[in-house]
Amino acid sequence: MISPIIFIFSLLLSSSHAAVQDFCVADLKAPESTGGYPCKKPEEVTVADFVFSGLGVAGNTSNSIKAAVTPAFAPQFPGVNGLGVSLNRLDMAPGGVAPLHSHPGGSEIVHVVRGAITAGFISSANKVYSKTLKKGDIIVFPQGLLHFLVNAGGNPAEAYFSFSSANPGTQLVDTALFGNDLPTELVAAISFLDIAQIKKLKSAFGGTG
Amino acid sequence: MISPIIFIFSLLLSSSHAAVQDFCVADLKAPESTGGYPCKKPEEVTVADFVFSGLGVAGNTSNSIKAAVTPAFAPQFPGVNGLGVSLNRLDMAPGGVAPLHSHPGGSEIVHVVRGAITAGFISSANKVYSKTLKKGDIIVFPQGLLHFLVNAGGNPAEAYFSFSSANPGTQLVDTALFGNDLPTELVAAISFLDIAQIKKLKSAFGGTG
Amino acid sequence: MISPIIFIFSLLLSSSHAAVQDFCVADLKAPESTGGYPCKKPEEVTVADFVFSGLGVAGNTSNSIKAAVTPAFAPQFPGVNGLGVSLNRLDMAPGGVAPLHSHPGGSEIVHVVRGAITAGFISSANKVYSKTLKKGDIIVFPQGLLHFLVNAGGNPAEAYFSFSSANPGTQLVDTALFGNDLPTELVAAISFLDIAQIKKLKSAFGGTG
Amino acid sequence: MISPIIFIFSLLLSSSHAAVQDFCVADLKAPESTGGYPCKKPEEVTVADFVFSGLGVAGNTSNSIKAAVTPAFAPQFPGVNGLGVSLNRLDMAPGGVAPLHSHPGGSEIVHVVRGAITAGFISSANKVYSKTLKKGDIIVFPQGLLHFLVNAGGNPAEAYFSFSSANPGTQLVDTALFGNDLPTELVAAISFLDIAQIKKLKSAFGGTG
Amino acid sequence: MISPIIFIFSLLLSSSHAAVQDFCVADLKAPESTGGYPCKKPEEVTVADFVFSGLGVAGNTSNSIKAAVTPAFAPQFPGVNGLGVSLNRLDMAPGGVAPLHSHPGGSEIVHVVRGAITAGFISSANKVYSKTLKKGDIIVFPQGLLHFLVNAGGNPAEAYFSFSSANPGTQLVDTALFGNDLPTELVAAISFLDIAQIKKLKSAFGGTG
Amino acid sequence: MISPIIFIFSLLLSSSHAAVQDFCVADLKAPESTGGYPCKKPEEVTVADFVFSGLGVAGNTSNSIKAAVTPAFAPQFPGVNGLGVSLNRLDMAPGGVAPLHSHPGGSEIVHVVRGAITAGFISSANKVYSKTLKKGDIIVFPQGLLHFLVNAGGNPAEAYFSFSSANPGTQLVDTALFGNDLPTELVAAISFLDIAQIKKLKSAFGGTG
Repeated sequence: MISPIIFIFSLLLSSSHAAVQDFCVADLKAPESTGGYPCKKPEEVTVADFVFSGLGVAGNTSNSIKAAVTPAFAPQFPGVNGLGVSLNRLDMAPGGVAPLHSHPGGSEIVHVVRGAITAGFISSANKVYSKTLKKGDIIVFPQGLLHFLVNAGGNPAEAYFSFSSANPGTQLVDTALFGNDLPTELVAAISFLDIAQIKKLKSAFGGTG
Repeated sequence: MISPIIFIFSLLLSSSHAAVQDFCVADLKAPESTGGYPCKKPEEVTVADFVFSGLGVAGNTSNSIKAAVTPAFAPQFPGVNGLGVSLNRLDMAPGGVAPLHSHPGGSEIVHVVRGAITAGFISSANKVYSKTLKKGDIIVFPQGLLHFLVNAGGNPAEAYFSFSSANPGTQLVDTALFGNDLPTELVAAISFLDIAQIKKLKSAFGGTG
Repeated sequence: MISPIIFIFSLLLSSSHAAVQDFCVADLKAPESTGGYPCKKPEEVTVADFVFSGLGVAGNTSNSIKAAVTPAFAPQFPGVNGLGVSLNRLDMAPGGVAPLHSHPGGSEIVHVVRGAITAGFISSANKVYSKTLKKGDIIVFPQGLLHFLVNAGGNPAEAYFSFSSANPGTQLVDTALFGNDLPTELVAAISFLDIAQIKKLKSAFGGTG
Repeated sequence: MISPIIFIFSLLLSSSHAAVQDFCVADLKAPESTGGYPCKKPEEVTVADFVFSGLGVAGNTSNSIKAAVTPAFAPQFPGVNGLGVSLNRLDMAPGGVAPLHSHPGGSEIVHVVRGAITAGFISSANKVYSKTLKKGDIIVFPQGLLHFLVNAGGNPAEAYFSFSSANPGTQLVDTALFGNDLPTELVAAISFLDIAQIKKLKSAFGGTG
Repeated sequence: MISPIIFIFSLLLSSSHAAVQDFCVADLKAPESTGGYPCKKPEEVTVADFVFSGLGVAGNTSNSIKAAVTPAFAPQFPGVNGLGVSLNRLDMAPGGVAPLHSHPGGSEIVHVVRGAITAGFISSANKVYSKTLKKGDIIVFPQGLLHFLVNAGGNPAEAYFSFSSANPGTQLVDTALFGNDLPTELVAAISFLDIAQIKKLKSAFGGTG
Repeated sequence: MISPIIFIFSLLLSSSHAAVQDFCVADLKAPESTGGYPCKKPEEVTVADFVFSGLGVAGNTSNSIKAAVTPAFAPQFPGVNGLGVSLNRLDMAPGGVAPLHSHPGGSEIVHVVRGAITAGFISSANKVYSKTLKKGDIIVFPQGLLHFLVNAGGNPAEAYFSFSSANPGTQLVDTALFGNDLPTELVAAISFLDIAQIKKLKSAFGGTG
């Protein structure tokens, strides 16, 4: 007769089990706080909150950069909220490019699973760390530093980005300079680019001003 | 006439004092966020939020493990919310056992105040660090590692657990394996235990499947 | 025809841009949580949330300490919520004093921009680190340690405090001892001060008991 | 003549660039500290420190669990030291199993790139969150919680684990119970397993006592 | 023949087990770093590093405050280094006092195990939260705030302090004001105390200046 | 006879005072670790380690950007090591510019003390938050985001930057693109700039390739 074991274990756990914060699945409708989203009620959480299938589908690379990024950050994948990790998928057609950008809130490991990709980052000391990666290779980009990826072969490439944050943000230099309402003269002053160059790219990136 | 001191000090503090986040007493009715519970309004906080008497009463050890844990985590003791520390009480009758378990979210110091307890943890490198503690001795279990406590004498024992988190969680290996709906065949596959052993313990711990 | 660039960049950003947590401007009307205030909705955030002009006005030093502190903590300057930095302004008339105090939640750099100030902190090992600073000098006070500032010349002084927290709190020793309802006998017991001295200062600081 | 730009930018950076801590490539020969390994000197760091090719080779699954894990933690991949992210590769033959285990220091995203895998974790509240993942699916395991993976099809499977730490540790329940010198009687007491079962598995896992 | 299990598990662990940072036992002879002490080599760590018996002996209360604190911080108890938790013992004779002080680096739970103690802290908003605790009661003091403890009965008292840090520091107001070389005039300026009072207490606490 | 007070307080502090980590003044000659520099021995620390006068001298703005930044990061100001705060001085002649850049490791408050400066940052969602600040105004730039400052009047301007880190790093877009050995074709691919524009700026910024 060992049923008392059942009794004592439920007793052991009962007072705290409803409130233990093992995880904090994002309630995307609630206002964010400094650490991410508030948690869904534990009783409403199911395994579906921890599983995401969106990375199983290739992104559409029929565009001018011949590349597409599919995110699994907290807004797409609420189970990672507060857990300090997230994943993205990159697809690249031949000639594809992920232009110079940074993630203000996280470091990133790039894992090439198909094709070949030249990847690199630039340090605060202005040194370039760059290499052409083949299938199976990984590279790490430290938090906040500018980096880039370029398809290095004549074939499609596929890679995955692992981040040290559930929602690291992404800032592209081109859109920051040319895709908003920063006045052309100001862009020129802070970038040393020629006015004609700026106007050309503002036109391409939809910028005004 | 030194009353201007009163004036300037209240002036000095007035603009910020209502919002200073010295503490964040848990509002247990509000949804949790990534760092714990939202705060009660400061004006509703009293000293009672910072004091807890529940550890003054021995737990009932008339059960099959002859042991009882009384928690003072944030859900029981809202004053510790966000402060990175909490306390538990352990009572053990002769023969009492705290079965193999871990705390995913915190390190723990065990302090024996009565009797003798054999306590130990197992490292990731699979080395056992174990010792029999007498009254006054303390041992520390690093975060997330499996550990256990066994009454080492023929007398009752009492100990207190200090945690590096307000709500570290507790995961018992036995309940994880035998106290839920994990299918028996799956338990066998991931534990190498015999089917008969699993069925016996599923019966004891109330597991199904 | 480079307009596809516009298309792909908006595509690249569209799925995540609404939820990227670059910042978390404080919603001061919502209840605080462990990491600070909940965030205003991103679409309601404007540049005004990130700009503050309150430090441009000298504080009124016509008081008994001949000094005034103007805060730009999260409650006054919601843009710093969650960003781990804030600023204060100090004005001192000749003879001005910032009495012994600490900031429980942050370290502080003092930057003297006018006049001369004797500034110091006391370590846990009870050593005094103190120096008279002139215009342009800075000193750092480690988190939580008692420190003080005294106008060192016969002229007005002005300084700025940079904190490692958006809301570090401020605790003054005098108000803690003499400006609340701590009973006189208890103050005597925990401070070794004479009863007469305590009563005199309780009167000055508005304390009861 | 725009050469002064060169001058000022190098000036702007010169005083700090040698010491900016963008990254901290592990010096594996130096003693670890609380946050990981000390840093290699910046001038000795090359792109090779940030690139790792070890995950490009399948692990050898000709063993009794028909599975192999290839790590890229800080000791194998020094570039991730201090960056809060790391990667592992899992290979599974048909029938392969990753037995019940936890990572005391990090959360984990599993990404299936070949085959099908049943993956699950168990919460502190003893609820099982489990699902069979096909190619392209991801699941997240919160920090410190017990989890498992089992090849779900008749074919080889391959997956990658992204961690929220450069060195999260790995603790297997079986080796903790049966692969060290924990005395059999003690194992019985803390696990409720039968003596015969323990002896059988101690023999299999090389345990003594 | 199940010995291959032994093989694969050692394989699974071998590449990382020597470097997994489950713990970081303080090497007290090495220079500290920002997160605490560097780690002893794992192969030199024994269970003795995680166990401490110094709290089993009552402190000597035959002194003017009739109280004694016995620390188990990282310098005394190297196993807690980096784990975010530590413990102290307090003994109080009748009339014993722990004078006004703060811990700059950690929050604290006080647990009374014998006698009765009046304990309290003062918030940044200058409100006193104080209560007389009897055996079994606990109170929490938020990080960095001034607090005190006074023996509340005619009997000896004993209590334990759990901290949210391995080395939180301790700063006493009296020694900060009267136990070092702060000039008397400066103490007067920053504390509003009378010169005679300061001189009397400087004499008592060994201060100069 | 109150001298026992001296005795007990020194007793109270003696066992821990040598090792309390109130601060960790950088030992700049020792190798960095993940959290910054190792600490100087406490007995070698003096007030000079916590004071810095370098910001009292205007930077030389006789250069092509008509601006100069004087840092007080940990390498220049060792006292801030590990304390999460640092300060910089900005001087700008009329027409001065701080070109587009980011700080990968910290948020920043800009405080204008002389003249007028147009300051702005760009969010991950590509929105510009910009304003012209006059003397006394402050603006905050969230961590890792691109930002800029331009002298907005015909007069010299002076500002101070407070950072949420002791060593946040600084990355300029222009030097990242044009001041190193990134091949021109690669710069074109990742920036969409014209080859002629790149060559012109590579020449100006000293880049090769």
